[in-house]
Amino acid sequence: MEMGEVLNEVLKRVKPDEEERAFVKTLMDELREITEETAGELNLSVKPYFVGSLAKDTYLAGDHDVDLFLAFPLETPLRTLRERGLKLGRAIAEKLDSYEVAYAEHPYVRASYKGISVDLVPCYDVKSWRDVRTAVDRSILHTRWVNENVEGRNDEVRLLKRFLKGIQVYGSEVYVRGFSGYLAELLIIEYGSFLDVLERADILRKGVIDPANWLDEEPELARRTVIREREEDKPLVVIDPVDPRRNVAANLSWEKYGRFYYKSLEFLKRPSIDFFFLRQRHYGNYIDELRERGTTLVTLIVDVVDVVDDVLIPQLERSARGFERVLTREGFNVLGWNVGRTGGGRAFIMLELDRRERERVRLKLGPEFFTERGREFYMKNDKVWIVGRRLYSEKEVLGDVVEVIQELLERDQVALGRGIRENVRKANILVNYVPKELAEEAYAFLSREKWNLKG
Amino acid sequence: MEMGEVLNEVLKRVKPDEEERAFVKTLMDELREITEETAGELNLSVKPYFVGSLAKDTYLAGDHDVDLFLAFPLETPLRTLRERGLKLGRAIAEKLDSYEVAYAEHPYVRASYKGISVDLVPCYDVKSWRDVRTAVDRSILHTRWVNENVEGRNDEVRLLKRFLKGIQVYGSEVYVRGFSGYLAELLIIEYGSFLDVLERADILRKGVIDPANWLDEEPELARRTVIREREEDKPLVVIDPVDPRRNVAANLSWEKYGRFYYKSLEFLKRPSIDFFFLRQRHYGNYIDELRERGTTLVTLIVDVVDVVDDVLIPQLERSARGFERVLTREGFNVLGWNVGRTGGGRAFIMLELDRRERERVRLKLGPEFFTERGREFYMKNDKVWIVGRRLYSEKEVLGDVVEVIQELLERDQVALGRGIRENVRKANILVNYVPKELAEEAYAFLSREKWNLKG
Repeated sequence: MEMGEVLNEVLKRVKPDEEERAFVKTLMDELREITEETAGELNLSVKPYFVGSLAKDTYLAGDHDVDLFLAFPLETPLRTLRERGLKLGRAIAEKLDSYEVAYAEHPYVRASYKGISVDLVPCYDVKSWRDVRTAVDRSILHTRWVNENVEGRNDEVRLLKRFLKGIQVYGSEVYVRGFSGYLAELLIIEYGSFLDVLERADILRKGVIDPANWLDEEPELARRTVIREREEDKPLVVIDPVDPRRNVAANLSWEKYGRFYYKSLEFLKRPSIDFFFLRQRHYGNYIDELRERGTTLVTLIVDVVDVVDDVLIPQLERSARGFERVLTREGFNVLGWNVGRTGGGRAFIMLELDRRERERVRLKLGPEFFTERGREFYMKNDKVWIVGRRLYSEKEVLGDVVEVIQELLERDQVALGRGIRENVRKANILVNYVPKELAEEAYAFLSREKWNLKG
Repeated sequence: MEMGEVLNEVLKRVKPDEEERAFVKTLMDELREITEETAGELNLSVKPYFVGSLAKDTYLAGDHDVDLFLAFPLETPLRTLRERGLKLGRAIAEKLDSYEVAYAEHPYVRASYKGISVDLVPCYDVKSWRDVRTAVDRSILHTRWVNENVEGRNDEVRLLKRFLKGIQVYGSEVYVRGFSGYLAELLIIEYGSFLDVLERADILRKGVIDPANWLDEEPELARRTVIREREEDKPLVVIDPVDPRRNVAANLSWEKYGRFYYKSLEFLKRPSIDFFFLRQRHYGNYIDELRERGTTLVTLIVDVVDVVDDVLIPQLERSARGFERVLTREGFNVLGWNVGRTGGGRAFIMLELDRRERERVRLKLGPEFFTERGREFYMKNDKVWIVGRRLYSEKEVLGDVVEVIQELLERDQVALGRGIRENVRKANILVNYVPKELAEEAYAFLSREKWNLKG
């Protein structure tokens, strides 16, 4: 297919049609009305703001999650905002279909209405970045800035967002570390079109993107942002048009940026609709894969009921790195690791090792033989010999990797993620076998198809 | 046993009795006579010198190898010395029981007479180190110097030599790297007695031993010797009383010195006759040892007919280190190695490894993904992923250690000892099994009893 055909075909699928637009409009009108009415009933001076892709008309067809922000006057004390915000949210949600209370920096209400998820989030009614007090306050400014600057290129945003989803780099959550929707919008506003952004994949990391010209308007703050983000080795610096202190791409990892980089190159060379929509993967058998690779798969199944993804995934990653370090020190070769959630409030840490059984002796490197410490080493060990000027001995160690891991955990020698330390200690350890629901994950990991850029 | 009793008992065994002395004296008289007579017949102006422990009266009971040097005038050209020396040696040997020609720096005759081995070695009749032209010339000077300075302490030398043999550090050959007989004699002359030497084991390496006071007589040459030997990290510097350019302990290794150091400490604390005479070792089963250690023994059997020990052992050691380096690079843990001769003109290289089968994939670390080389790496490999800024891939490798070694040898990737390179390439490779004649050696190696200071 030609590039034009590909883009048309994608747009056909991701651009909401008139019927859908009408549905969304009605939905938002009703929600605004209910909110204003409820705020009146509670005697609260609160303004409703729609934020997110629905409010910016950059949502993908069928993707209708509503973000309705309840903006309190700036003079409201934080405690009052939390209490009344939650109260108002509940009161509104009572008039919708169902709801539950969720927790981020502050509690908020997640309701359902006509089959659509509606987040009712209390915030401050900020006019500029100087007013920002809570993490969510900036959203109102983002929505306004995009709407003022997108200049009809909403479908270009849709193409880019769909592409980012298709190549699996969409989302700025810590367990994704990809491109946020807002970042996609800014890139389109900066470079003009979907293809223009892709053609710039190569140079993105080299410069600073500054759509609101903060480097002139607030040079000191903006420069400090650039320096800080460069020092932290971020692949991309995009100064937030609504806040010179912030890099919109702060959460983007080199891995996800690199994936975008190669997929852009490939797409421009050989356009295909496959880049936008994840194909059904072919999964092989992880047991066969293990046999072919001659390696060993160790899987820890960890109970993690009530730990949210935002916390869980980074803590699992930290724990996996802890195992990697300590098992390497213990003489195993750690070829890779993989973490994630599995069913039933449980998570997994997979480690691919060179073998299940290590040698049961380890060399002990002693001091120079003619020193006081050398003579002590000689006294303390049953078997001692000399290589060069130094004494050597050896000690017996456990051989089986499960025993080694258990011993390391008992002796507290593994650097584990703080929030899940106790959970990991009680983990179930499986070798060369995983529960059925992890079979595909194990294959994707061992075969490296999970990360393969050419997959 | 008290120290005095121990030393008396040892002396009883190592000091030749009157009968033995008479036998040796007769032997030497006869050999001198035959030599002078034969030199006369051949019209050669050659003086016979007895050198070595027999000539110095420091030989151990029953140890009667004769070194008879045939000293030619200094003005004899080297070629003439070689030719006539060999001719004279043969002519003398014809009058003895049997002989063969052996090769060191120069060919010489090794004869047998009354059951005693007699080396007939041509050399120059040197009067001082300035005259020395061939490697053996110094022996005449050594013998003279010791006889002039030993001052009746010959039995102390015998005790020290027997002790060095008992703890297995006797001999300065490159495949031993221990104490020569001459070094033992100098230590006794320097410190006065066997026990005095042992009590100095600790400080030996700290100073310079200079029995002939060369640092005053020939300060420049002697100091150069000290500096050179220190730079080469020799454990001990003993300036040769007959040659200020030479360190008598040049061949002593740290390992053998360290063994002497600890055995001296132990002997002084708990004197026992066992230090002087090697006990029959108890050998365990190497297969059991392997099983307990959870390791793998790889043995290369190499054909080395006609390679002399002086060359063979260092070359085998070099080859073993080559295997150690390259197998470590290939992901095996090399716990130790051991080399030596076995029967039938063959030698062995043993390697103790962590396992027989390694994983069959190896990580390939690529360049940073956004570089030209990164894009080439991406093109060249089927499976590519990113960690941080860098591309990774992996490749299939052979798993079995025998296949790995064969491939490494084929690709000429092992640094092998020069003289035996082709022999090693054709070696037989055995895993977890050795020929019967190597069973004890394999056990001594795997158990480390071969080097154990406490063994």
